[in-house]
Amino acid sequence: MTLSLYQAAVPVFTRALNNLVHVLKKGEEHAKAKNVTGEVLLQTRLIPDMLPLVRQVQIACDMATRGTARLAGVEPTPFEDNETTLEQVHSRIDRALEYIKTFKPEQIDGSEGRTIVLKTRTGEMTFDGQAYLLQFLIPNLFFHCTTAYNILREAGTEIGKTDFIGQA
Amino acid sequence: MTLSLYQAAVPVFTRALNNLVHVLKKGEEHAKAKNVTGEVLLQTRLIPDMLPLVRQVQIACDMATRGTARLAGVEPTPFEDNETTLEQVHSRIDRALEYIKTFKPEQIDGSEGRTIVLKTRTGEMTFDGQAYLLQFLIPNLFFHCTTAYNILREAGTEIGKTDFIGQA
Repeated sequence: MTLSLYQAAVPVFTRALNNLVHVLKKGEEHAKAKNVTGEVLLQTRLIPDMLPLVRQVQIACDMATRGTARLAGVEPTPFEDNETTLEQVHSRIDRALEYIKTFKPEQIDGSEGRTIVLKTRTGEMTFDGQAYLLQFLIPNLFFHCTTAYNILREAGTEIGKTDFIGQA
Repeated sequence: MTLSLYQAAVPVFTRALNNLVHVLKKGEEHAKAKNVTGEVLLQTRLIPDMLPLVRQVQIACDMATRGTARLAGVEPTPFEDNETTLEQVHSRIDRALEYIKTFKPEQIDGSEGRTIVLKTRTGEMTFDGQAYLLQFLIPNLFFHCTTAYNILREAGTEIGKTDFIGQA
């Protein structure tokens, strides 16, 4: 038995996004009880020069969708960042989950050595598939899921780490 | 070429802890410039009922050290949670890095199916090695590294996501 690249990618992304849905729902309940609108909740930030909750969710989704596509050597389907309501944010996550589910293990397994070039604001980043997954996608995905959690937690939502990690 | 369990564990933990050292150093510089002691910085929290910076670092270290040992089927060496100064915190991270470096790939590769039982406050959690790494260790490690980052960021440290992710 060995670990497959697909197993270290798609199920990890799926689980992280499902747990994000779970903490978001708890955040929504809390906001509702406090008469805070979804629009305001989605624009909440830890501090003014950090990204708001909605961007944390969008970027977490992008890591999963773009990451899965690039590992499979496929041009990622673009998703517009135009969500302003909680309903739209849930739809965005649902579509991300649906999208990554369309990829088969055989499209990703064996891509450890595939060259992946990312265009960033400051230039290009080049990885092989394994480094792209382990050094870029996974840390980024959990960075944004955790920051979303911290925003919701700081806003008063009663969530604990078990809500973030999910059940075994 | 396939992904090995060791590769998805020890180098990922090492990189995360090295990046944590990097953001901590930036946080220290900022604190110093503002006449904030290391002791106060380490006790800083996002909100009162979340864990302080020092605990975020200790738990991140534990995920790496205990996780590596358990994946190798070895009883983890205990580390005392007694750090109060930045110097002690850096020593803790250094010792964690040294400890996980002592494990060889052959101790961990092939442990995907190893049964791992965790005793928690609420009972026992049982995983196989692969699930323990992907569903527990990695999300937990990045949860605590990100929360440490967010505490430092909220405290005014000039850090960006590149500091968290590290260079390719």
